[in-house]
Amino acid sequence: MEAAQDCLAEQPQVSMAAIARAAGVGRVTLYAHFPSREVLLEAVIDHAIARAEPVLDAAAPGDGPAADALCRLLRSSWQVLDRHRRLFEVAQHELGAVRMRERHDQAMARVEQLLHRGRAEGAFRDDLPLAWMVTTVYSLLHAAAADVNAGRLPQDSAAETLIATLLPALRPPR
Amino acid sequence: MEAAQDCLAEQPQVSMAAIARAAGVGRVTLYAHFPSREVLLEAVIDHAIARAEPVLDAAAPGDGPAADALCRLLRSSWQVLDRHRRLFEVAQHELGAVRMRERHDQAMARVEQLLHRGRAEGAFRDDLPLAWMVTTVYSLLHAAAADVNAGRLPQDSAAETLIATLLPALRPPR
Repeated sequence: MEAAQDCLAEQPQVSMAAIARAAGVGRVTLYAHFPSREVLLEAVIDHAIARAEPVLDAAAPGDGPAADALCRLLRSSWQVLDRHRRLFEVAQHELGAVRMRERHDQAMARVEQLLHRGRAEGAFRDDLPLAWMVTTVYSLLHAAAADVNAGRLPQDSAAETLIATLLPALRPPR
Repeated sequence: MEAAQDCLAEQPQVSMAAIARAAGVGRVTLYAHFPSREVLLEAVIDHAIARAEPVLDAAAPGDGPAADALCRLLRSSWQVLDRHRRLFEVAQHELGAVRMRERHDQAMARVEQLLHRGRAEGAFRDDLPLAWMVTTVYSLLHAAAADVNAGRLPQDSAAETLIATLLPALRPPR
């Protein structure tokens, strides 16, 4: 998993043979576990998301005022995503945006719960569909990763830029 | 172009042979113009964007208060995108997000100019990179299309949902 993750992030077109070499296993062994590049890519994404869970939980999205909790969750989410920016781009291209979004359902459930709680507290708006507000967070997080990849957004200010963009979009309208 | 656009939107996996049939030409003729599915897809996207130009110009993004102009431009942009939701999804998958964004550069130049003007007028924020604000508009427009495709966002309220989300994100912070 780790070897595949590194190889794909460094060189999107990397072959299964090269991934097997980097992992120190034979091609036959790699194919025995992952019959296709697509299956391997899905496993790598799921592995990266699973490893992100404790980082996202450490942001304690259920604690304290909802807007503060969202800032913490966005910083943690960016921290994880920033590490996987290239991998996400490869996977988005090869698996498609729809399947990538589905694989993020569990990770995005934290955002959904937090937005739901924040609505009840009056911290977030309730004039738009909750699902759309989750999409707004998901889309801008990944758009920031793409902009950093493309050299359009400075990496070191990306988290604060995201917070500055998302909070006014999610707060109750003036 | 029109036949290919309809075929791809209706059935993403449609073959070149089926597109040729729908266009009333032979496969050899189709391949003479478009040597691969990828080349055809790029041409279809460029054609759809070129046909959108007069619709976007009719929104007169250079006229009147910048925030009002952005609302008009967003409504026109959605009107065009809504027609090509499925096609965009297919092309995003097959050509990749990076190339799709590049092909939208000219269309997005209107948004960039308008945001630039609105900053000078104090209607839009200037504490975030202009390129990021353009990305925010582009990303949420296409995220709305994906959410309508997925049945997560009602089609008839998508334009107003977009405006309600984007304006507070782009206005000077409170």
